Amino acid sequence: MTLREKTAQLVGVWVGASDQGDEVAPHQHELDEPPDLDELLPHGLGQLTRPFGTAPVDAAVGALSLARSQQRIAAANRFGIPAIAHEECLAGFAAWGATAYPVPLSWGATFNPALVRTMAATIGADLRAVGVHQGLAPVLDVVRDARWGRVEETIGEDPYLVGTIGTAYVQGLESAGIVATLKHFAGYSASRAGRNLAPVTMGPRERADVILPPFEMAVREGRPRSVMHAYTDTDGIPSAADEELLTGLLRDAWGFEGTVVADYFGIAFLKLLHGLAGTWAEAAGLALAGGVDVELPTVRTFGRPLLDAVGSGAVPEALVDRALRRVLVQKAQLGLLDPDWDPLPPALRTADLDAPEALRGSIDLDRPANRRLARELAEQAVVLLRNDGTLPLRRPARIALVGPNADAPTAVLGCYAFPVHVGGQHPDTPIGIELPTLRDCLEVEFPEAEIVATAGATIDGDSTADFAQAVACARGADVVVLALGDRAGLFGRGTSGEGCDAVSLQLPGVQQQLLDTLLDTGTPVVLVMLAGRPYALGRAETEAAAIVQAFFPGEAGTEAIAGVLSGRVNPSGRLPVSVPRQSTVQPSTYLAARLAQDGEVSSTSTSPAYGFGHGLGYTRFAWSSLEVAVAETGTDGCFRLAFEVRNSGERPGCEVVQFYLHDPVASVVQPVQRLVGYRRLPLDAGQRCRVVLELPADLASFTGRRGRRLVEPGELELRISASSTDHRMRVPLLLSGPAREVDHTRRLHAVVTVEHP
Amino acid sequence: MTLREKTAQLVGVWVGASDQGDEVAPHQHELDEPPDLDELLPHGLGQLTRPFGTAPVDAAVGALSLARSQQRIAAANRFGIPAIAHEECLAGFAAWGATAYPVPLSWGATFNPALVRTMAATIGADLRAVGVHQGLAPVLDVVRDARWGRVEETIGEDPYLVGTIGTAYVQGLESAGIVATLKHFAGYSASRAGRNLAPVTMGPRERADVILPPFEMAVREGRPRSVMHAYTDTDGIPSAADEELLTGLLRDAWGFEGTVVADYFGIAFLKLLHGLAGTWAEAAGLALAGGVDVELPTVRTFGRPLLDAVGSGAVPEALVDRALRRVLVQKAQLGLLDPDWDPLPPALRTADLDAPEALRGSIDLDRPANRRLARELAEQAVVLLRNDGTLPLRRPARIALVGPNADAPTAVLGCYAFPVHVGGQHPDTPIGIELPTLRDCLEVEFPEAEIVATAGATIDGDSTADFAQAVACARGADVVVLALGDRAGLFGRGTSGEGCDAVSLQLPGVQQQLLDTLLDTGTPVVLVMLAGRPYALGRAETEAAAIVQAFFPGEAGTEAIAGVLSGRVNPSGRLPVSVPRQSTVQPSTYLAARLAQDGEVSSTSTSPAYGFGHGLGYTRFAWSSLEVAVAETGTDGCFRLAFEVRNSGERPGCEVVQFYLHDPVASVVQPVQRLVGYRRLPLDAGQRCRVVLELPADLASFTGRRGRRLVEPGELELRISASSTDHRMRVPLLLSGPAREVDHTRRLHAVVTVEHP
Repeated sequence: MTLREKTAQLVGVWVGASDQGDEVAPHQHELDEPPDLDELLPHGLGQLTRPFGTAPVDAAVGALSLARSQQRIAAANRFGIPAIAHEECLAGFAAWGATAYPVPLSWGATFNPALVRTMAATIGADLRAVGVHQGLAPVLDVVRDARWGRVEETIGEDPYLVGTIGTAYVQGLESAGIVATLKHFAGYSASRAGRNLAPVTMGPRERADVILPPFEMAVREGRPRSVMHAYTDTDGIPSAADEELLTGLLRDAWGFEGTVVADYFGIAFLKLLHGLAGTWAEAAGLALAGGVDVELPTVRTFGRPLLDAVGSGAVPEALVDRALRRVLVQKAQLGLLDPDWDPLPPALRTADLDAPEALRGSIDLDRPANRRLARELAEQAVVLLRNDGTLPLRRPARIALVGPNADAPTAVLGCYAFPVHVGGQHPDTPIGIELPTLRDCLEVEFPEAEIVATAGATIDGDSTADFAQAVACARGADVVVLALGDRAGLFGRGTSGEGCDAVSLQLPGVQQQLLDTLLDTGTPVVLVMLAGRPYALGRAETEAAAIVQAFFPGEAGTEAIAGVLSGRVNPSGRLPVSVPRQSTVQPSTYLAARLAQDGEVSSTSTSPAYGFGHGLGYTRFAWSSLEVAVAETGTDGCFRLAFEVRNSGERPGCEVVQFYLHDPVASVVQPVQRLVGYRRLPLDAGQRCRVVLELPADLASFTGRRGRRLVEPGELELRISASSTDHRMRVPLLLSGPAREVDHTRRLHAVVTVEHP
Repeated sequence: MTLREKTAQLVGVWVGASDQGDEVAPHQHELDEPPDLDELLPHGLGQLTRPFGTAPVDAAVGALSLARSQQRIAAANRFGIPAIAHEECLAGFAAWGATAYPVPLSWGATFNPALVRTMAATIGADLRAVGVHQGLAPVLDVVRDARWGRVEETIGEDPYLVGTIGTAYVQGLESAGIVATLKHFAGYSASRAGRNLAPVTMGPRERADVILPPFEMAVREGRPRSVMHAYTDTDGIPSAADEELLTGLLRDAWGFEGTVVADYFGIAFLKLLHGLAGTWAEAAGLALAGGVDVELPTVRTFGRPLLDAVGSGAVPEALVDRALRRVLVQKAQLGLLDPDWDPLPPALRTADLDAPEALRGSIDLDRPANRRLARELAEQAVVLLRNDGTLPLRRPARIALVGPNADAPTAVLGCYAFPVHVGGQHPDTPIGIELPTLRDCLEVEFPEAEIVATAGATIDGDSTADFAQAVACARGADVVVLALGDRAGLFGRGTSGEGCDAVSLQLPGVQQQLLDTLLDTGTPVVLVMLAGRPYALGRAETEAAAIVQAFFPGEAGTEAIAGVLSGRVNPSGRLPVSVPRQSTVQPSTYLAARLAQDGEVSSTSTSPAYGFGHGLGYTRFAWSSLEVAVAETGTDGCFRLAFEVRNSGERPGCEVVQFYLHDPVASVVQPVQRLVGYRRLPLDAGQRCRVVLELPADLASFTGRRGRRLVEPGELELRISASSTDHRMRVPLLLSGPAREVDHTRRLHAVVTVEHP
C-alpha cells in the first residue's frame, strides 16, 4: 500500500444516507469543509460516519444508499476494501424510526445487566440489518459532578454498577456482530465544575480506582473491539495524546486488541483547544503516537498533514502501519475483506433495488418486540423515591396533570435519541416512533378519571403567568400529578445533554416555584421527574405525597410511569446516582471518604435527600437468616455468606440486594463504602429465596501509594443493604496474611447466586 | 536522654496565660483531656501552645505568666530546656489588645511585598516582646474554590502573588527572630466542593505548578524555620503521612532544615478522620515517618502511644531522634539553650514582678505605629471595582448608610483576629482594640453630611422586615452607601472563616435582595463589601454607582474605606481573586486553560465580573514607549524589555503593572495566562517612570509529562497588563534551543526595576 492508501484507512468521512436510495452524501457542518470523495476514494476509506444519524431516512432506503456507497468505495480502491460504517447507539440506534430505549442512567436504575445485554443485542441486530458495523457505545464514564450535561448518558456514580451494566451492553452488542466502542476513555465525567470538556483535576489513584475500573471490566469481560478517547485532559494530559493510557494501560496491561477511535474532532482539538500541538501535523503525530488509530468524524489531521509529517520524518511510518494493521484486522474480522463480501444486508438481497420506494418501511427498527423490551427496561428503571401511601392511586375521580413534561412527547428522550439529536433540524419530518405523553398514558391507565392537564410553566422559562391555572386545576382534583424535569438537547438548546451543563442542581426555570405553589394548595402532589440528572427537590422531599423519578425512560417510559402510578407496575428501580438535598455543593459523590461526608469541620452538607441505591416498591421484604461461611480469609481468598430474603407483602415485587464494602483502616484514604455486588430479586408474594455471596478478596483491592493495586490485610465490614443508606446487616470480615499486589488478572466480580427453596 | 525525655520535646501542651501573672494553665477543650503538667514536666516539654490566644490576658501580665511557666519547665527537666511558645499570627498577633491587620487576602490586594514585610517584622517584634518564639503563619494556600471558608486567610488565587507576598511575610517575621511557619503544606485550599478538610482531588502536575510554588519560594527565599502540614489528603494520601512531600520535596529537594509541626490534632486525624491508622501509635508512626516532628496543639499520639510503639519496635527510635534533633537545633538557634537564657522578655526585666497589677498596660501591642501600618495596608488593599463617576463623593448633604456591616465593629476582622477567634467566648471583656465602624468613619470623613444609618438586614438572617426602613432612608439621600459582606467566625458561626464554607458565592442571607431593593430606589448606590471571599454581586455589576471591595481590612479598614469614598485616599488595591459573575460555577480560577474558560461546548460560564488583578483609581495612567531589548533567548536565557508609565491624571495615584505569560503550545496543557511579575508604581500627577523587566526563561517552566520541570522552546506571549482582563501591550517572545530541565535551583522571580527620569 502507498502511504496515502494506508492513511486513507485511518480516517472517516461524515456522510448522510440518501432517502432516495442514492449514494451517501458528505455531510455539511460548521467545523470542516466536506471532503471531495472523487479525490479520496481511489485511495480507500476507513470509516463512514453516521450514515443514518445525520438526517431522517427510511431504514431500508438508507441501507440501500449505504450499500451503494460501499460498493463504490470497494470498487474505487485497488484492494476492494469497503469502509466500516459506524453509528451512535447510546440508548438505541440513533436512526429515524428506531426504538428509543431508556437512557443509560435508567439502565443503571434497573440494576439488571441481563436485560441490558438483551437490549444491546437487539440494538446490534438493528444496526446490522442496515449495514452498520460499529456502534459508538457504551458510555462508561462514572458520574463525579451531577451538573455535567452528559450525566444522562452515564450509567451512574458507582464504578461497579457502571462496569457490570456497561459490560453487559458490550456483550450484547458484540453478540450481534457489532463493534462496541467504549467511551469516553478516560475521565470526561470529572471535568471541572461539571462543564463539558473542561480540564479534569484528578490524581492517578482516584483515576485508577474510580474512572478506569468500568473500562477494565468491559475490556476484559466484554471484549469490545473499539475504544474512543475522551476529549478532556487529566492533570494536563489530553486523553487523545496519552500513550500511557491508550497504549500502556489499555493494550499492554488489559490486552485490548481493537481500534482506538477519536472522539469527533478530538485530534484537531489537540491544536484548537488543548494547545498541545501547533499544527495539524503535530496533532496527528501526537494522537497516533498516543495510540489513536482512526480519525473521526472526518479527515482533518490524518490526511495531508499526516502524509507530509511522515514524508518529512516527523512522524514514523511505523505508527501509521500500527494503526493500519488494527483497522485492517478489524475489517477482516467483520468479513469486509472476504471474497464473498456483499454490501447489501440480508433483508435487501432479494429486493428490487431499482425501486427504492418499494423498499420503504420494509425494515422496521421499532418492532413490537423492541418496544416491549423498551417498556420492560423502563418499568424496571422507574424509581419510587417517596410514598406516603398515596401511590398506587386508588381510582381518583379527578387528576390534575400539571407540569411542562405532562404532555410533551419527547420528555422521555435523551439528547442522543434521534428525534432530539437530529429531528429538531427537520421539523417537518414525522417523529418516526410513537411517543405517547404522560397524559396519553394516564388516560389509558385511568379511563374512569377526569384528567385535567396544564403545563403551568415551561422547562426553563421564567414566566409564572400560568401558575394560577395550575393552581385552579389542582384545587379541584383528588391528586396532582406534577411532571417536571429536563428537556434534552445539545449545546445549550436543552437543560440536559451534551453541552447542556447546569449551574446547579436546582430545577431549571421556575419549576421549583411551581412545585412549591402546588404543594401549597393542599392537594396531594405526586411528583414525576422526567430528567437527565438528579435534582434537589426542596420541599418535595418532605411534603410531596410521592416522588417518582424517571431518567429519560425512552419511548415506553410514560407507559411505565403510568403503570407505577396505577399500581399495574410495582416499581423496582434503584437510584444509580444520589438525589441531592443541597443544589450547589458539587462535585459530590456517594463514594465519599469520611471527610467528604458531613461533619463538624464544614458548614456545608453533602448528605443526599435520597442515596445511591435507594428505591421503594409496593410490597415488603424481610431479610433474615444470615449465615457467614467464610468470614476470615487470606488476602488471596474469598468470603462466603448467605441470607434469606422473603417477599412478606401482598403482591409480587422485586428487591435489589446490594453489597457495600467498608474498609476502616487502609494505607490510602478509602471511600466509606463502595458497591461490590448486587442482585435483583423478583419474588412473588410470600416467596422466599436464599442469596449466596462469594466475595473475592480481590474486590477489597485499591491503588496503593506506589500506584500498584493492593489487597491489604485487616478488618473489613460488609454491608448487606437495600441501599447505600439502608444497611440491613453488617458482617465483620477479616483479611489475613501479607498485603498482596494484584494485577489485571484479578477477579473483578462478586458472585451472587440465588437459590429458590 | 531517655526515650521519654526525647518524645517530650516533640509535643506541645495547650495552655492559657494567667491574667494574674501566675503560671499558664492547661486549656480545657472538647477534644482532649488536659494533661497533668506535674507528671509531664520532669521529662521536658517541646512546645507551649497559644498562651496568649486562648483567653484575654494583658500582654505584660501574660508575658510574666509565660515567663514563670518557662522557668518552671526549664527547672523541671534534667537539661534545663524551656519550651518553644507558639502563637497564631495570621493577620496580626492573635492576642488580646494586639493590632488586627488586614487579612492576607488584603495583603494580596496590595501587591506590595515590602509593606507586608514591614508588617510581619512588626508582628514579630510584638510576639517577641511577650516571649513567644514561633508564629503559625503565613498561609500559602492558593485559592482554588472560593466557597472554602478559609479563603480570607489566603493571599489569593495566583501562586506567584501568593509566593512573593508570603515570602515577604516570612522574611519580616524571621527578621524579628520569630520562627515563621508555612502552612498548610499542601493542598488544603483545593478540598472538594470548597468544604473544609474534604479530600483533595488533584494530580501531581497541578500540585507542582499551582499549590507548591509559593512554599518553594518561601522556603528558598524566606528561610522559614517551620512548616505545618495540611489536614487534607491529596489523591488519598494525607499530608501528615506524606513522606514524599514532607521529606522528599521539602527537605531533600528544597533544603528545608527546620521543624515540621502538626496542624492541630492533625496526627490524631490520621486515625479519627482519614482511616489511615487503626491506633494512636500507628498514627504517630505514620506522621513521624512522613516527617512531622512536633505534635500540636497538645499531646495525644506522641505520648504513651509513641513510647510504646518505639518500645515494641513498631516505630524506629531513629525517627524520634531525627525529629528531636530538629527541635533541639531550633531551640539552640532561639537561644533557649544558652547559659544566660532569661525567660523574661526585655520589657519585664526591670519590672517588679511581684506586682503584676502594676505591669498591666506596660506592653502595648497596638501602638500608634502599628495602627498606622494597619491603615496603610488597608488603604493599599481596598479595591475599587466599579465607578460611574460617583466616587469620590462630592460633599453629599445626606448619606444613607445601610447594611449589616454599616455599623458593626468587627466587620473588618477575619476569623483569626482575637476579638472574633476568642473574644466571642468572653463577651464581658472589652474588645481590646479600637474598631471604629464605617459609620464612625463616615461621620469623621463627612462632617457636614447628615448620615442616616440602618442595617436593613442581618448578615445571614432571612428577614426582610427592615427593608422598608432602608428604602425610606435611601429615598431621602443623595447617595446610599451599602455595606454588605460577611461575618467572620469559626465552624459555622460565621459566613466566612475556618469551617464556614459557603454553598455558593451568592451573598449570604437576604443581602442580594437588599441590594436589589436599594438599586430600585433610584438613589445612587455605592456598594461597600466587607467580606472574606469574593461574591457574585448580581445587578450591582451594572447598576451600582460604585463598588468598593474590601477583604476584612483590619482595625483601620473603615478609615481606609471612608477615605476612598471621600477621595482622601486614592484607591490602588487590585483583586487577588476573581469576583465571579456566576455564583455556583465552582471550582473555578483565573488560572484557566482554554477549556476551563467559556466556550461553545459548555452552557455554563466562568467569566468573572471582575478579573484577577482588576482595580480602579481616581487618576489615569498612560502606558507607552515599549522597547524590547531581548525578545528571543535560549531556554536558559532571560528576556528584557522596558516601557513607560505616566500618571496622566490630576492627582497622585498608584498603578500596578502586571506581567502575564501566555504559552500557546506546550507539551502539557497550560493556563491561558499566569502572573510572572508585578510592580506597584506610586506616581505623582504628571510623573512618569520607566519600568524595566527581566524575565528569566525559568519562569516559563512547567511540570512536564514525566514530572520534571521543563523550559520548552517555542513562542510565548508576554502580556503587560493593568489586570488579567486588561492587557495593555502584548510582546511576542521566542525561546530557542533544546528543552531544558530545571530543578530547585532555578530562578523564581522576574526582576522589575523602576527608573525615575
